[in-house]
Amino acid sequence: MKPPVMLYACHQVDQDAWLSALAAADPGLEVRVWPDIGDPAEIDYAFLWKQPRGILDGLVNLKAIFSLGAGVDHVLRDDSLPDHVPLVRMVDPTLVSGMVEFVVMRVLHYHRHMPAYERQQRDGFWRPLPQVPAAQRRVGILGLGELGAAAGRALAGLGFDVTGWSRTARDLAGLRCVAGADGLTFLLEQAEILVCLLPLTDDTRGILNRDTLSRLPRGAFLINAARGGHLVEADLIPLLDTGHLAGATLDVFAVEPLPAGHPFWFHPAITVLPHAAAVTHPVTAARIIAGNIARHRAGQGLVNVVDRQRGY
Amino acid sequence: MKPPVMLYACHQVDQDAWLSALAAADPGLEVRVWPDIGDPAEIDYAFLWKQPRGILDGLVNLKAIFSLGAGVDHVLRDDSLPDHVPLVRMVDPTLVSGMVEFVVMRVLHYHRHMPAYERQQRDGFWRPLPQVPAAQRRVGILGLGELGAAAGRALAGLGFDVTGWSRTARDLAGLRCVAGADGLTFLLEQAEILVCLLPLTDDTRGILNRDTLSRLPRGAFLINAARGGHLVEADLIPLLDTGHLAGATLDVFAVEPLPAGHPFWFHPAITVLPHAAAVTHPVTAARIIAGNIARHRAGQGLVNVVDRQRGY
Repeated sequence: MKPPVMLYACHQVDQDAWLSALAAADPGLEVRVWPDIGDPAEIDYAFLWKQPRGILDGLVNLKAIFSLGAGVDHVLRDDSLPDHVPLVRMVDPTLVSGMVEFVVMRVLHYHRHMPAYERQQRDGFWRPLPQVPAAQRRVGILGLGELGAAAGRALAGLGFDVTGWSRTARDLAGLRCVAGADGLTFLLEQAEILVCLLPLTDDTRGILNRDTLSRLPRGAFLINAARGGHLVEADLIPLLDTGHLAGATLDVFAVEPLPAGHPFWFHPAITVLPHAAAVTHPVTAARIIAGNIARHRAGQGLVNVVDRQRGY
Repeated sequence: MKPPVMLYACHQVDQDAWLSALAAADPGLEVRVWPDIGDPAEIDYAFLWKQPRGILDGLVNLKAIFSLGAGVDHVLRDDSLPDHVPLVRMVDPTLVSGMVEFVVMRVLHYHRHMPAYERQQRDGFWRPLPQVPAAQRRVGILGLGELGAAAGRALAGLGFDVTGWSRTARDLAGLRCVAGADGLTFLLEQAEILVCLLPLTDDTRGILNRDTLSRLPRGAFLINAARGGHLVEADLIPLLDTGHLAGATLDVFAVEPLPAGHPFWFHPAITVLPHAAAVTHPVTAARIIAGNIARHRAGQGLVNVVDRQRGY
């Protein structure tokens, strides 16, 4: 059996770190960095992130495509990807734990009144605020995939009243799981803190908009750690300025980096993060890709294959 | 058996909430609010917080003293308290969970570079920072009582590398437990984030000082959620201004409320909280006091009695 050959075409990541992690994870893997791909017929696998459109054309022996990210929208935006080749999303435990840290951090920040305490400090004003037990704090999570389920479990473990929404009904210990349009309405009318961890698909694009965010209780907080495309950006600031929403943490944006002069940079109730909530770690992720390639070559099939119809 | 009589002398708390919680927890308990104590010989129990000095003089039948707070320094500062009467500290699960929330929130805030990201947002600057896995982030906890042990377990559960220090050696799953002077040195030389949850005693007063804080690695963060007396306040700002410490979260101060004009209010690397990290909840705490009184009257002895020699 000839050694496997991988086409590497990942943009806006640390290429040196990825190439050395792949070499360490599978010394037998030959990695060709796009555009130096050699004979296209020799390519067995492709490893992609924000790749140029059409670069897989002519890879007649391509057996699988690996996405660097948990969300595959940045790979699927190339609508010329071959339909018959399985696409594998990234399921990296260090990415999951990073997202759990981020969500727990920001939920606690809002739950424990930190924006108000920061304002009080600026004013030199000493006033303890009523402390709501976690069991009485309603958190809503949109999306119960690997990331949403892990974040929901961690929040439930801290005692929060967590409702999670997914397209198809799920059953997770410690969380109230809802699905469908009625489930979404139920969640929105409850959630004092709303966390978005959905995949970006045609169904979820723009799901955070004036209509849905208006259904949250007055004074609610939003945390978007999924994709910029989930939020209708123009709808957010009016809801903050009327006080219907009390604050928002945004890690993702329609255009990244967030353009200079964008009003999100300056709004006092918006915390802007540079798409840093959770990163795929080259060392752990390369091992997962190598393991999946080994499974595939042993005829055992790939794990974490994306359903192209659903988009995740 | 005559109904029990309690002297209530708690200051700077919500008296209505406490009296109604005590009435709900034990309708048979007669509560007398200081200074209207009636016949001093009828008082069986005292419930104290920041009480005036000497108010227990003449309570010849006093059987136990309850502290409203987990730390009893605010009760013991009255050095006329009768030595032979047991003093019970507050062990309230809602106080513990509130402290766990607070410590996890601030440790994650520093672990995930939030002060740097807030500065970047003010500058309109987009730059993801290296994300350190929790397993490589060394957190030190001073004090492994109810609060320190619970906070340490929660941080270890998130994957942090946690070392805890206590006066007498402890053994807690998931944490590296150290004790004594050598243990303190070991902890300080490691801790990138130092959390103080010690009781305030003659041994621990001023334990956060120029000498000990200088032993932390450069760029470390301090979280003091114990007592203001643990920190030598004049030593903190010089360590922040040289960059040896990168930031501090202070919930407690030598004088509370923190006086107007105190430099802590204005320092950009200090987060000031109004002694709000964790509050004793009247409803749950009153049930715990009532349960302890019932145990005592049934001859079963009191739980959570303070060792006056140790001070906690």
